[in-house]
Formats: sequence, structure tokens, C-alpha cells
Amino acid sequence: MLISSETKFRGRVVTGNIEVVQLPNGQRVTLDVIHHPGGAAVVAIDTGRHVCLVRQYRHAAGGWIWELPAGKLEPDEPPIETAQREITEEAGIRAALWESLGGVISSPGVFTEIVHLYLATGLESAPPQLEPGELLEVHWVPLEEACRRALSGEISDGKTCVGLLRAANHLGM
Amino acid sequence: MLISSETKFRGRVVTGNIEVVQLPNGQRVTLDVIHHPGGAAVVAIDTGRHVCLVRQYRHAAGGWIWELPAGKLEPDEPPIETAQREITEEAGIRAALWESLGGVISSPGVFTEIVHLYLATGLESAPPQLEPGELLEVHWVPLEEACRRALSGEISDGKTCVGLLRAANHLGM
Repeated sequence: MLISSETKFRGRVVTGNIEVVQLPNGQRVTLDVIHHPGGAAVVAIDTGRHVCLVRQYRHAAGGWIWELPAGKLEPDEPPIETAQREITEEAGIRAALWESLGGVISSPGVFTEIVHLYLATGLESAPPQLEPGELLEVHWVPLEEACRRALSGEISDGKTCVGLLRAANHLGM
Repeated sequence: MLISSETKFRGRVVTGNIEVVQLPNGQRVTLDVIHHPGGAAVVAIDTGRHVCLVRQYRHAAGGWIWELPAGKLEPDEPPIETAQREITEEAGIRAALWESLGGVISSPGVFTEIVHLYLATGLESAPPQLEPGELLEVHWVPLEEACRRALSGEISDGKTCVGLLRAANHLGM
């Protein structure tokens, strides 16, 4: 139960609060809570079982990392629409078939972000359109190889590891 | 390359900055960056291939969720020591064998947190000691069943899904 909340930081994407909360056992605690609108990420797989990965420059992560195409939810945007928008903008594709692969909680101690994962198949090309400040390359990697990298730690982005491994499981690999 | 940084929020765990960055292509962008000290999480597996999961109340995640025992790094603390401390404090165990399962980036768009994952075996009991504000139950679940839940989305915490699936792969399951 939320007792009080004070906003200390309003950024472009996140809001930082100090919140006082009463836990279910009656104890009161004071917490940093970083509010994030949530996101969506896409495991797009072509007919040759290659998956779309982006190599993206991420300042907060210290440089170039491997990720699924993904983005944050715009206000009132259903996650599936975010997913459909991002796969076109970042990877230059559209998909005919969309299936949910569930959600991923990014960091439950302080951060409210949930990323909604989707499997997208039945792909065709569409004009890409990167947002300002996005710097990325699009790669197509065999799904099995991408999963191997998620398991070895070569791919370390959380939503990307979980999305790849759930997709492979869903496809019976 | 960091051009400027202004701290807007100093919380108990995280610091919120507005940072101006020059990307490798020369473009300048202004970003919210939430600095986090990083964390460690433990896949502790007993001789019967049960894994330790905690059911923890997490205000930022909206309630009770399933997680690996985990915690944030104290200043200058090596991640393996965080892992060893947390598995005792939260789960009341010690482990003889420690192996790295790599890292997980929580949310690379805005958040600097990396969680270091470890596989711990050779377990024995030790006195638990919860920190104030921690509310959790300890459960032991067959690793195969825990992986099934990570793949189905019943377990949705990112570090937990990745840790479980890397551990099962490491053990040849």
C-alpha cells in the first residue's frame, strides 16, 4: 500500500520518486521507485529460421550491445502496436502473424518497467525509419545460434535472452 | 562520449542524471540515465536438482513475484561476494562451488544495472538474516519445472529467467 510519493526527477522517459510503502506484513519502507512506461520487444523469425537482432549503441550499457528490436510504449499505446511499430522502424519489416511470449520484468527492486515480448512471423519488408539518437545495425542470425549466444552470455540484454529462449521453446526447438 | 551530466535525483539505491552524449556517428543526444551499482543473483541447486527461488514482495513490480536470491553490490564489493552474502541472508544457505553464468543487462536504454549470475552447488545450511524491508518466502523447486515456468512466462523476472535457463544449459539439461 502506497503511503506517500514524492517526485524528484522528471526525465524524458522515466520519473524518479521517493515512495513510502506499507508492506503486507505492516512494515513501512522508503523506496526509490523509477517509473517507466514499459516496452515491447520482437522476436521476428523468417522462413529460414533466422532471427532479427540489432547491434545498437547504448550509452547506459557502456557501448554496442545485441538486442531484439524494441521500444518503449507511447502514452495509451497497446504493447502489440509498439511491437509492430518498432519492428518496422528499426528493422524495416512487417509481420503477418503475432503471438505473445509473455512479459519480462527488468529490475523489480527499483524499476517499474515490464517489456512485452512477441513472436512475429510471416515477414515482408517495409520502409525503416530510425528515431533521432538511434544508432544500430540490423543482423539476421540463425535462431539456434542466437540462443547459444544468450545461454553463453555473449548476448547479455535481459529481454533479448528471454525472448530468444521463449521463442525457440515455442517453436519446439 | 559523455559531453555533460547533471544529477537530478539521489536516491537510496539509484542516481538519476540528464546526460548529453556524443554517439560514435557524431550525433549528440540528451538522455535520462539511471545509475545503479549493479547486482548479483544466484542459481543455487541442491543434490536433488531443486533450485532455490524466493517469492518476494516487490512494490515496483506491483506485488509478489518469483526471483532468484539476489541483491545489489555494496560499494567496492566484488559481485561474487554479493552473491555469497545474499544466498546466506535470503535463503539460509552456503555453497562450496561457485561458477559464473555471465551477466544480464536489465534495461540498456536508461538503466546502468548489470546483474552478475552465479551457479552455486555443494550447499549447506547457514543462519539467514533478512534486511529490513525484505519480505520473502524461500521455495525449492525442481530446476526443470522452474525452467518451464521461465519459458511460459509464469516467472517473469528477467535475471531469474536468464539465470535458470543458463544454469540448466550449463548442467546439460
